[in-house]
Formats: sequence, C-alpha cells, structure tokens
Amino acid sequence: MQNQAIVIGVIGPGELAKKEDCCLAFEVGKTIASANYMVLTGGRNCGVMEAALKGAKTAGGKTIGILPGDDTTEMSEYTDIPIITGMGNARNIINILSSRVVVAIGDGPGTISEIALALKTKKPVIVLNSTEEADTMFSRHSKKAFIKMEQFEKKEFMESLNKLILET
Amino acid sequence: MQNQAIVIGVIGPGELAKKEDCCLAFEVGKTIASANYMVLTGGRNCGVMEAALKGAKTAGGKTIGILPGDDTTEMSEYTDIPIITGMGNARNIINILSSRVVVAIGDGPGTISEIALALKTKKPVIVLNSTEEADTMFSRHSKKAFIKMEQFEKKEFMESLNKLILET
Amino acid sequence: MQNQAIVIGVIGPGELAKKEDCCLAFEVGKTIASANYMVLTGGRNCGVMEAALKGAKTAGGKTIGILPGDDTTEMSEYTDIPIITGMGNARNIINILSSRVVVAIGDGPGTISEIALALKTKKPVIVLNSTEEADTMFSRHSKKAFIKMEQFEKKEFMESLNKLILET
Amino acid sequence: MQNQAIVIGVIGPGELAKKEDCCLAFEVGKTIASANYMVLTGGRNCGVMEAALKGAKTAGGKTIGILPGDDTTEMSEYTDIPIITGMGNARNIINILSSRVVVAIGDGPGTISEIALALKTKKPVIVLNSTEEADTMFSRHSKKAFIKMEQFEKKEFMESLNKLILET
Repeated sequence: MQNQAIVIGVIGPGELAKKEDCCLAFEVGKTIASANYMVLTGGRNCGVMEAALKGAKTAGGKTIGILPGDDTTEMSEYTDIPIITGMGNARNIINILSSRVVVAIGDGPGTISEIALALKTKKPVIVLNSTEEADTMFSRHSKKAFIKMEQFEKKEFMESLNKLILET
Repeated sequence: MQNQAIVIGVIGPGELAKKEDCCLAFEVGKTIASANYMVLTGGRNCGVMEAALKGAKTAGGKTIGILPGDDTTEMSEYTDIPIITGMGNARNIINILSSRVVVAIGDGPGTISEIALALKTKKPVIVLNSTEEADTMFSRHSKKAFIKMEQFEKKEFMESLNKLILET
Repeated sequence: MQNQAIVIGVIGPGELAKKEDCCLAFEVGKTIASANYMVLTGGRNCGVMEAALKGAKTAGGKTIGILPGDDTTEMSEYTDIPIITGMGNARNIINILSSRVVVAIGDGPGTISEIALALKTKKPVIVLNSTEEADTMFSRHSKKAFIKMEQFEKKEFMESLNKLILET
Repeated sequence: MQNQAIVIGVIGPGELAKKEDCCLAFEVGKTIASANYMVLTGGRNCGVMEAALKGAKTAGGKTIGILPGDDTTEMSEYTDIPIITGMGNARNIINILSSRVVVAIGDGPGTISEIALALKTKKPVIVLNSTEEADTMFSRHSKKAFIKMEQFEKKEFMESLNKLILET
C-alpha cells in the first residue's frame, strides 16, 4: 500500500533569476518529473521556482510548493500541492529537509542560504550555473556529495541524481 | 495542465488519542480520500494522525504529513509526501494554513491549539468527538463555519465538507 | 557574573481585547516588573500586549516583544528588546517556551492557542478574566499548575507567581 | 520612559569554530558591550556564540541567546535572556532580523547561511576572519553595507559599527 514519493528540491533565485537560470530550471523540472520523482520548490510565481514547476507539469509530473506567505497569492499556477507556511524565509529549511536531493540553479542570497543549510543538514546537492567562488566555498564545507555540473546534460544529470538518491 | 489538489487537514491527539478517536479518524480519512481529496495530517506514526492517513491509503488516496522532527524517524508509514519541518510545534500553523477545511477529532492540548489557530486564520472547521466546553468556546470565536457533528455519518459529513470547500 | 533574567510571559487578545483585559494587563505588567522579573509579550502595539509592556515600563522594568512581522512596524513603543521573527503565528510557541510562567488574560483564539501550547509543553499558567468553558477545558489538560484567579489581587498573584517560579 | 536596546548580532561557527574565531568573538563581544549595545547570538554553549556572550558579560553587558532547542539544555551560561524557539535552524532568520547590524566571524555552513539571509533582508554586515571566496561572493550580493575587516582593531571596528547603526 505504501508509495512514498521521492521528492527532489529545485532551488534558485525568484524575481532576480536570469533567463538562462529559468531555461535550465524548466529542463531540470521536466527531467526530474520524467523519472517519476516529485519536484519541490519555494512555490512562488517567478524565477527558478515557477520554471521548474512548469517543466515538471509539462512532463506530467506532480509538484509541491513550500510557500512563504500565508495564502496562495504569490503561488505559481504550476503548483499541485501548496504547503502554506506563513513564515517567510524561515520556510527555507523546510525546502531542504523535505528534499531527498537538492538541485541549485543560479546565484542569489536566498539560494546561497539554502545551499548552506543543505550542507549543514547533510543533504546531497547538485549545482548548476553557479559561480566559481560559491563552488569553491561550498565544496570545502560539504560532508555529503556536492556535485557541480558545468552544463546540463540530461543523461549525466539523471545518473548523478539516481546515484545520490540510492546513497541516501 | 493545472490540477491543484484539494487538501483536507485531519487533526487530533497523537499518543494520547482514544481508541474511538482513531476509529473515527480512519473512517474520516477513508471518506475524504474516496472523494479524491488529499488528506494532510501532522504525519506522525500514532493516534489520529496515523489512523487518518491509513484510512486514506485504504481508499487509494494520496497523503501528506507535516512532520515536526528533522527527519522521518517518527513518520507514519502511510505518509506519501513527507514535509519535514524540523520546527516542532511551530509547524502546527502549517497544518492549518495548508488545509482547505480542517477536521478535528478528539480532545487534547495540541488539537485545541490547532483549532484555535484555524479560527484565528478563518479556516472552516468540522469537529467530531470533542467536548461540550470546547465546542461552546470555539463556537463563540468562529467567524467562518464551525460545524459540530454529534456522530460521524458519511453522507452528512461529505455534504458538510463539500459545502465548506465550495465556500472557500 | 551570571545574571539570567526571570522572564514572565503575558498573553492575551490584541485588537479585540476588552478594556478590562487591558487594565488588568497593565496591573499585571507593573506587578511583575516591580518584582524584578522581565515581561515578555507578543510585542504588538495593541491590546493586552501593549498594556502589559506599558505597565512593566511604568514600574521601571525591562520588556521583551516577540514580534510576528519582519520589522518593527507594529511594535509597541514599550518594547525594550524586540525579537523580530518574521514568522507570523508560528512565533506563538516562542512566547511560551521562553517564559518561565505564562499569565493569560482574557479570551480569544490566539490566546486559547497559546494556553494550549503552554499546557502541551508543560509550562505553568495563571489565568485571569477567562471564561468558564476555557477554564474547565484547560484544567482537564494541565499536567503542571493551572491557576485560575477570579480577580487580580496583587499579593495573591505574587505568591502564586513566586511559587510557580520556584517549582520550575 | 522609552529605552529600546540596540542589539548587535554576532554569528559564527559553533562546535567547529577555530580557536582564533573564538578569541576574536570574545573581543568583539566585549567591545560591543562596552559601547552599551546588547550582544545577540545563537545562544549555545560553544564556539563563536559562547565566546561573544562571555566577552559581553566581561564588559558588564547584557546578552540575548536565540536558542534552537526547546529548552535551555545547550544554552551558554553567559546568556542573560534566553529566547527559546524549539525550531532548530529555522531560528536563524530571527538572529538576523532582530539584529541592527550583524557581525560574522569565521567560516561554516551555518554562518554562510546567516550572512546570506542578512544580505537578502538588507541588514548591514561586518565580516571578520572569513575566506576570500565568501567575501567575493557576498560583496556581489550586498545592497547594504558589507564591510570586510582584515583584522580586528577596536577603534576601527567601533567606527564602522556606529556608522552602520546610524544609517539604519
């Protein structure tokens, strides 16, 4: 009867996301959903969050949004299951703890904060489109897998992801 | 493409739940899932939480558990989607805000705390197997629907639930 | 060198507080501060929160406000130490856990929610100006001291408070 | 009657702090307290947290600890005012929002996470004993003051701190 979902978190900038971050997030979301994993994001209607959710829905997947607000005002329409926290940035830790593996796309203070929490709580992380400094810094603090991909290649991504899932 | 889940929260005592609370929670979970709504609880492996999740799974439904701990140690095996908060009782507000309607079963301090939050945040509540005092007290504070059912009757319950969903 | 403060929480309605709740909160705040204990409230500029903080300042005491917002916009001017949580109602548990004894004044859903959390986390509670039903309900769930005072009498209040502080 | 405290947050590694981080934190805490500002930390009995609190007490200051646990088990004895959150890493945002200026000492995932939150919420930050990469990364994301000090020099530190306090 059991059927626990495998939940993969996708994190990245919201309003300040670059176009290439969003394109990447869409592909990542689509790829994760194609493998029958659920995509979890911060749930807002912008940036990497919305793009990853949209990608997942395109592939027929199911999506979770962990919303900072106390209602669905800012929710992406591609969220199937809204988890409404009403606790602003304090909800970041929920994104991390609820994800089997965390995929980080792009560069911004919220994203850095979440990657750091992932390392602190020993979650495996795959990083795409980040910066040299962030990668150097985070590699030093990782006790679990911290994988930097120079560019997104579907097959390589899925191999890394599946390996990390098996190890956790 | 959109397919936002209708999430119904079921709250009630954990370790201190009475047997009749658990029987009721099982029926409530099963009934909600039969109507294709998702069941959300506090996600732990005891009391009303586990019984409602088990009932929902029996009916082939999907379930969400909002866990207080920082891992799945105390998780009910009937949880499909574990949301891991690591924030103890502070997670109670998430149970309430994420539910379209809240169904409260039984009587305990955690349950009272959550019913009170539901009234404060204007969520509709259906109460089963509560106490005279709790009902009197909460009726006075309700600005939204606060429905007390003397006993669980499937058809009546679903009529009330569907009415509350339509109104929100 | 050590000098840990004894912190007493005062909880009660905000915007919906009755005039008598506020008068009582002012006296309670003043009395607690006169005994050199710190007064902790939810920190907002209304109702029982503001009245208790103002009372404490009148007696030359020090005050703490645990604010739900992410800045000091709604802060009472009688707050010496603002703790800014940005997490809305999720901050209620902090009010309770940070208080050695909780004094509840009046009747409202937020207050009920906090009293229930206090009982759940085994904090001693003194209740003033509550309702018959609330008192009956909470007495049943208390594992620690749950003291109902019919009316505020300074000497009796301080005896109860000091007794509870010694026991914790 | 008003007397709102000026609260300065000191953040840095706990168990994994280096000896030099702790020495620095002691001096920083002492210096802040000598200026009659309150020192706020994560409140635990180790690393930068404890050292900063101890430094502040040495100078006769008052200290606040924002504790992650649900009691005072892990609390530093140099904490005057324990704020008990019971919410683990979710409490990091409280450290930041409650501080007028944030002083970060050393290098670790928790510290990185908090610096990133400070930048996100537009708090001014002074960084000591960090790494080249962290400084490069954070400078890029700062919209408010982000000051890196090569070494701690009391007079220069206080000038920077006072300037940042005046600007907020």
